[in-house]
Amino acid sequence: MADNPAEPSKSALKKAEKQAKQAAEKAAKAAKQAALPLVGGKKADDIIGMTVSKADNFSAWYQEVVLKAEMVEYYNEISGFFILRPASMFVWNTIRKWFQEQIETLDVEEASFPSLLSSKSLEKEKEHVEGFAPELAWVTKAGDKDLENPVALRPTSEAIMYPYYSKWIRSHRDLPLRLNQWNSVVRWESKQTTPFLRAREFLWQEGHTAHLTEELAGEEVLQILEFYAGVYEQLLAVPVVRGRKTEKEKFAGGYYTTTVEGYIPSNGRGVQGGTSHCLGQNFSKMYDVKVEDPTPKEGEKAGHIHVWQNSWGLSTRVIGVMVMIHGDDKGLVLPPRVSKLQVIMVPVGINKSTSKEDKEKHYDEMQTFKNTLKKVGVRADYDTRDGYTPAWKFNDWELKGVPLRLEYGPKDAAKSVVSFARRDTGEKGTIEIASLTTEIPALLEKIQSDMYNKAEASFRSHRINITNWDEVVPALDARNVVLIPHCLAEKCEDKIKDLTTGNQEEAAGPADAKAPSMGMKSLCIPFEQPEGIEKGTTKCLNPECGALAEKWCMFGRSY
Amino acid sequence: MADNPAEPSKSALKKAEKQAKQAAEKAAKAAKQAALPLVGGKKADDIIGMTVSKADNFSAWYQEVVLKAEMVEYYNEISGFFILRPASMFVWNTIRKWFQEQIETLDVEEASFPSLLSSKSLEKEKEHVEGFAPELAWVTKAGDKDLENPVALRPTSEAIMYPYYSKWIRSHRDLPLRLNQWNSVVRWESKQTTPFLRAREFLWQEGHTAHLTEELAGEEVLQILEFYAGVYEQLLAVPVVRGRKTEKEKFAGGYYTTTVEGYIPSNGRGVQGGTSHCLGQNFSKMYDVKVEDPTPKEGEKAGHIHVWQNSWGLSTRVIGVMVMIHGDDKGLVLPPRVSKLQVIMVPVGINKSTSKEDKEKHYDEMQTFKNTLKKVGVRADYDTRDGYTPAWKFNDWELKGVPLRLEYGPKDAAKSVVSFARRDTGEKGTIEIASLTTEIPALLEKIQSDMYNKAEASFRSHRINITNWDEVVPALDARNVVLIPHCLAEKCEDKIKDLTTGNQEEAAGPADAKAPSMGMKSLCIPFEQPEGIEKGTTKCLNPECGALAEKWCMFGRSY
Repeated sequence: MADNPAEPSKSALKKAEKQAKQAAEKAAKAAKQAALPLVGGKKADDIIGMTVSKADNFSAWYQEVVLKAEMVEYYNEISGFFILRPASMFVWNTIRKWFQEQIETLDVEEASFPSLLSSKSLEKEKEHVEGFAPELAWVTKAGDKDLENPVALRPTSEAIMYPYYSKWIRSHRDLPLRLNQWNSVVRWESKQTTPFLRAREFLWQEGHTAHLTEELAGEEVLQILEFYAGVYEQLLAVPVVRGRKTEKEKFAGGYYTTTVEGYIPSNGRGVQGGTSHCLGQNFSKMYDVKVEDPTPKEGEKAGHIHVWQNSWGLSTRVIGVMVMIHGDDKGLVLPPRVSKLQVIMVPVGINKSTSKEDKEKHYDEMQTFKNTLKKVGVRADYDTRDGYTPAWKFNDWELKGVPLRLEYGPKDAAKSVVSFARRDTGEKGTIEIASLTTEIPALLEKIQSDMYNKAEASFRSHRINITNWDEVVPALDARNVVLIPHCLAEKCEDKIKDLTTGNQEEAAGPADAKAPSMGMKSLCIPFEQPEGIEKGTTKCLNPECGALAEKWCMFGRSY
Repeated sequence: MADNPAEPSKSALKKAEKQAKQAAEKAAKAAKQAALPLVGGKKADDIIGMTVSKADNFSAWYQEVVLKAEMVEYYNEISGFFILRPASMFVWNTIRKWFQEQIETLDVEEASFPSLLSSKSLEKEKEHVEGFAPELAWVTKAGDKDLENPVALRPTSEAIMYPYYSKWIRSHRDLPLRLNQWNSVVRWESKQTTPFLRAREFLWQEGHTAHLTEELAGEEVLQILEFYAGVYEQLLAVPVVRGRKTEKEKFAGGYYTTTVEGYIPSNGRGVQGGTSHCLGQNFSKMYDVKVEDPTPKEGEKAGHIHVWQNSWGLSTRVIGVMVMIHGDDKGLVLPPRVSKLQVIMVPVGINKSTSKEDKEKHYDEMQTFKNTLKKVGVRADYDTRDGYTPAWKFNDWELKGVPLRLEYGPKDAAKSVVSFARRDTGEKGTIEIASLTTEIPALLEKIQSDMYNKAEASFRSHRINITNWDEVVPALDARNVVLIPHCLAEKCEDKIKDLTTGNQEEAAGPADAKAPSMGMKSLCIPFEQPEGIEKGTTKCLNPECGALAEKWCMFGRSY
């Protein structure tokens, strides 16, 4: 369940992010105040939109958009914690429902283990625990009494669950055991936190399974990874690269880690999307999870087999990746499949001179459209707020990322059409009312696939195979991630990071102008390998390495 | 969100419960060991069922059944915590899905707030917080550093959420605000814990809403209460009485509390089923949640209105109530609607003399039944475990509470029928194979309604209207709850509890033989009031009270 730590933020970066957050909060406050006069029934045409441009200051833009689109709220009481508002929870629940259906096809069952673990159970698995120890939150008191044995909030549940796997698995008939839980975990990060991307508490699912053989475990690892890819590609319209983590980046205490890796075009950083780990027999040996060998060699007494375990997790981080990739200077852009509201209808051409009767009739028609669309599975609504101009409403719904806007006025009615505007491209047109039930679902699907294709083209064109070391840093500076022939050794990775770390601390300017100073780390060894590595001939690209290359490895600056 | 504290357990009761737990664990261990030889392929006919009778020792029976039916596991690392296994999580997720659909019709949205609250936010609402203070778990350290400001695990989220309601609600247009979250809460109970019924951590949903008027808030309180009643009556086949809590028993800091109250026939105790609270303006005044009055008096400047708030919660306690009511000496009995497996098919008449071909053909037919049933929405499976006799399998599935067993052997095949046995009544019969798709769903619905009707008849006959004080304690001893004319005063309730508390501490015997010594408390003021109270004439039944009766109030020994 590793969220591999990204680069420590530079102090200047921290400062810039803080400023961005303050700017965003100030803007939001201004927005609220600007909205207040409306209570008295006055008309307000203030456009309360984004104030920061995505290109100019990406991290400030991000913080502003998640706040203003009402995805999150900062939890001021305890730093590093965030409130997920309904717009985010709808996305998460859509993912949850979809993923749940997938894992049920594998007969994964749901369980709920306690959120606390004892210090005693932590002592079992040193390598795994060491990785989390600095981030453990400790409960030491209940009421006004000190606890005899302090307990920690779970950062992940291996140490909580596996003692019971040992109890429950007594025979090969109990295998596979596949349990998943949907919960929240707490990791008291000392690094700069960012909504969705890095928080001290986040929602996720964690699956923990046990199998009789390495092969069976390995099969599941890849099935789950493919589901994770599906969450990104099919729901969030985000392309990912499937691959395996290097030894350096794999889950602490595991056997191997597979991953889906995303890419943020605005700053050229890679972002870990979700990881599916084979733990091998490491944990089953620690926790003594074993069964009698069901197929002993002929004539021999059956020995014991320690089970092969997997664990796999996907967190609310996915929402942040989606926001970063699709959003624009007007605000959030949501893929239709995960948007609570897919279509917002805005009445136009209705003004003071419109009679009450005409207005009611017009709204009734829009209600009919809403009902009609609901029948074909489209989540639509119409905006009848008084005292706001259509332009104000357009901006408001664009800020919130609703994929499709329909405008409907007396002129449209006369022609039996509605006018539409796509959130992703701005493209406009008209649709005949008689065709709403076929055209709207088709258009939403078109938006979904166009959003994916655009992001996919961007990732593909910024994933560059490099065989000349001198091209690496310029490629990173041009916001690419790179595939290089690599020896896969841990030490070499450390060296590569050093070699690619710049010294631009002094440079002024906003946070993202500074990102290029960050060294690159390995993102994954893609399953899909380019040609060109000749075993025993091709060398590792690191000029100070000298070893032979094993694989093309994807490196990049990253979250 | 009050789980009103029940009676402190007597020390003897505690001891008996501990013994019961130990007995249950020992039995479970024996069961596992007995199963072990099967690994080697040997036949085992040990019937690994219940060892305690429900009538003889109810609390030991309960602890044995939840363990052996694999509903829960005790979390040995930290006392008072339990692991919910897939059988429980299926029940909870069924409830979750159903309840979620209901609240979506009210436009309740989902949110996720942090699980931690700062000591500062606790200071706002004294009355509410005092009730929870002794049960708060405090995080004082992160990694090896002491936190500057300790934070507590949420026991409920009013103090976490309402500061943001104040931020988000700026105009009456923002009302109603209706948010719900599905999460877990921690209350470090010092009382004896019991799986589902009282645990230091439990799953629940907590809804928190804000409205413009008392009337609108009150309307929702009752809508939600009806959903809670639906969870019990429609899903769990458990009858409940709807009513209002007395001042003494209402949610601390709230305005009024409505509740659904259940009844456990085995010991005659009442059990609080779920509570829907109107908080009035108490919290909105503390947290300054207010809007400008949208309809000020003519000619006057608009003043401010503090919003009317509700909160409502339903926890995994519901599962415990279901187990207690329906279970029997063979184990768990699950209502079909919440049972993961509704039909278990067991092959019979297949033995060593059956040819491999015949056996495969027989299993293929059962696979066909399974597929056929799946198409009509029935969750069915068949048990092909080798080395177990049909009798062993019958017992195993009865222990786990599967509502309907189908037996199928060559003799049945010859007659084109399957034999069935109902888990709830033991009734047996045959069904023609050609009618499976209609008969099985109908039979499952019959089981569901019969289970409800049986429990309902039991509750009805043990809910006794009493107008003579001397009959109260004998009625309690006969495992009834009682409705009595009552003044509704808090002091009088305290007195009634004293008057009905027995002194049987010395009595030997198992835990439940001791229950009668417990005093009674008010369960609710039922909405459905019997006749017979004449305003200004009828007196409170408490002989030491002397005040006039306000309402029929339901009292009982309780959880």
